[in-house]
Amino acid sequence: MGIITFISDFGTRDGYAGVMKGVILGINPEVRLVDITHEISPQDIFEAALVLKNSYSFFPNSSIHLVIVDPGVGSERKPILVETDNHFFVGPDNGVFGFIYEVETIKRVVELTNKRYFLPKISDTFHGRDIFAAVAAYLSLGTSLDDLGERHNDVVRIDIPKPEIEKEMIKGIFFHIDRFGNLVSNIPEALFKEFVQDGKYEISFGGEKVERVCKSYLEVGKGGVLAVFGSFGYLEISVRDQSAQAKLRLCKGSEVKIERRGYGTNRICERKQ
Amino acid sequence: MGIITFISDFGTRDGYAGVMKGVILGINPEVRLVDITHEISPQDIFEAALVLKNSYSFFPNSSIHLVIVDPGVGSERKPILVETDNHFFVGPDNGVFGFIYEVETIKRVVELTNKRYFLPKISDTFHGRDIFAAVAAYLSLGTSLDDLGERHNDVVRIDIPKPEIEKEMIKGIFFHIDRFGNLVSNIPEALFKEFVQDGKYEISFGGEKVERVCKSYLEVGKGGVLAVFGSFGYLEISVRDQSAQAKLRLCKGSEVKIERRGYGTNRICERKQ
Amino acid sequence: MGIITFISDFGTRDGYAGVMKGVILGINPEVRLVDITHEISPQDIFEAALVLKNSYSFFPNSSIHLVIVDPGVGSERKPILVETDNHFFVGPDNGVFGFIYEVETIKRVVELTNKRYFLPKISDTFHGRDIFAAVAAYLSLGTSLDDLGERHNDVVRIDIPKPEIEKEMIKGIFFHIDRFGNLVSNIPEALFKEFVQDGKYEISFGGEKVERVCKSYLEVGKGGVLAVFGSFGYLEISVRDQSAQAKLRLCKGSEVKIERRGYGTNRICERKQ
Repeated sequence: MGIITFISDFGTRDGYAGVMKGVILGINPEVRLVDITHEISPQDIFEAALVLKNSYSFFPNSSIHLVIVDPGVGSERKPILVETDNHFFVGPDNGVFGFIYEVETIKRVVELTNKRYFLPKISDTFHGRDIFAAVAAYLSLGTSLDDLGERHNDVVRIDIPKPEIEKEMIKGIFFHIDRFGNLVSNIPEALFKEFVQDGKYEISFGGEKVERVCKSYLEVGKGGVLAVFGSFGYLEISVRDQSAQAKLRLCKGSEVKIERRGYGTNRICERKQ
Repeated sequence: MGIITFISDFGTRDGYAGVMKGVILGINPEVRLVDITHEISPQDIFEAALVLKNSYSFFPNSSIHLVIVDPGVGSERKPILVETDNHFFVGPDNGVFGFIYEVETIKRVVELTNKRYFLPKISDTFHGRDIFAAVAAYLSLGTSLDDLGERHNDVVRIDIPKPEIEKEMIKGIFFHIDRFGNLVSNIPEALFKEFVQDGKYEISFGGEKVERVCKSYLEVGKGGVLAVFGSFGYLEISVRDQSAQAKLRLCKGSEVKIERRGYGTNRICERKQ
Repeated sequence: MGIITFISDFGTRDGYAGVMKGVILGINPEVRLVDITHEISPQDIFEAALVLKNSYSFFPNSSIHLVIVDPGVGSERKPILVETDNHFFVGPDNGVFGFIYEVETIKRVVELTNKRYFLPKISDTFHGRDIFAAVAAYLSLGTSLDDLGERHNDVVRIDIPKPEIEKEMIKGIFFHIDRFGNLVSNIPEALFKEFVQDGKYEISFGGEKVERVCKSYLEVGKGGVLAVFGSFGYLEISVRDQSAQAKLRLCKGSEVKIERRGYGTNRICERKQ
């Protein structure tokens, strides 16, 4: 039966996402279809890549993940299929799988060239419908990867901003802002914990400072600024019951720093007095 | 097979809702998944409770309703499952089931304590994924409630604003505003009808007045203000082909009054001349 | 099993769309449900009709398309079912099927009068739930059309703006603007190609001019204005990596002209130097 998930910047009002589902169900009426999101900011390849990284691994093995953010549709950018140990990824070769190349073991990348598995008529502007949806549907039916196209090795990667680690400081940035206005940094929880160990530290961003990481938003008062480890494993800055983005006037790319302050009393998650 | 429905404030752009579905399908690949909404205003427990009340009963018996508006995630607020005569409800014990306690017969409330039915790693900020989705999936497979946790009696209720009934007047408020800008009052159709009987009445709100309840928006001209009984059984104020919220500049909490005006010619739904 | 698709102006935040699905699954637990969109602009019958035209044909034969944009709910506008060679359409008789009457062969139109296939209680404001969802579900179970109601012939049509074709010019308008801000004209690709043949031409709109139709957005620089044939077969105006609507300050109804300029060097899709 299988599962096909969707990440796109199509929004929902024009019916583009629905049309892809129509195409798929015409080929495989049994497959499960799950929207991850169609609200990626228009043409934002990085955002699509990050949302994909944060979500794909929660789906069962052999799921097929369609990622259609495709500003180069109609150009020579290639349509590809990426097979990893546990999942399949279908979309344009423009960086949307940039994080996948970092976190998954890649078994094979195929350039989709076999038009037998496309719709009969290919438009210039909607390969999500004419190529990617159709190929994903055939793949879910068990079509062999060798049949879908040819090996492709030189994939397009993206520039993933890594935190800079200095002697007493980590410098990161906020690389995602979620629906709640939470500022998601690029500093992984594991890196943070290894860096601060049992010592004191200070987290600073946009003129604000906090000296601990909370486990719950309720540890600060309404409107209070706090740091938490977000659900996807990065350090996040939030404002209780409000949008941190709006209150702190920070944006994607804004800086966040962690500085060690020697050994002392602050600790992860200590309860505020 | 079963049905799991979703009400959350996750929005759709970050993939949070999709991830919950991935978790569920990994546990029960056969279950039906239906979004009621992910667009509850951030942290708005009351809105979630009201939308749940207005929708759950249209689903088949034994449906499982996941309601994840959870500002207290990571704190000591409890994860619970509510069993009623016909439905199951899973979510945080913070009031999201406040209307359910009023309208359904509660058979059992269970605090979800058995970690065997959670994801292996529990984050601080996304119990929708790590606890609630997983538990709902196991429940849909037939896991016994006794196995999921322990009886829990002292549930969190919410303050549901009731209309004040005086001798010749009902005072209500608008407690929801829908996508169309319709102002939904807390005055039930049945109460209204019993109160006005066959008599004349006046409905007033924000400096406007109407003297009848229409059956169709077309009974007034474009831009005309009217009262109707909305689809969830409450008196609503609308503006034909426009947003009543925008035109009347009213908001949640604004007052609406029904006053009896003796016996005379106005009646429910009389056709405008 | 069958497929039921949804087009509505319900949005997603109030749960109206979810409730329709609950009703359907209570009648036919096996049917596939696919959202095309719930984000039609409130009461915009034309937009619903156009999105329907652009999407329905990508669904398998015998799909049932529910289209609920229904400003006249509660009035004497009729609930109908349209059967064509390959599809079924269910909704109010207010023009939402206006394009379908142009592009499909109509086999039968039925006025939905048999209350046996409605919900027991019919509200004044939500026939999407009480009538249309229920009827679509029974139809998906194989209920005969004759049983659902009576023949209905005098359907409501809509005014579909056609391009004006003069000797050396086509005058069209933009009749849809999509999520990306692409301006979709009412000039079909086939008409355009027949009109310009191999000759030179000029496409003008809002003070701008282009002299070719591109195959890819990448053929112009960032922020460049271009014409493409959109995925639904009409000439569209776009701005690379931006919203043409915002940049050009055009709106629905704005004019677009194609003028023949004799025979010369410009051609469809020539590559920019």
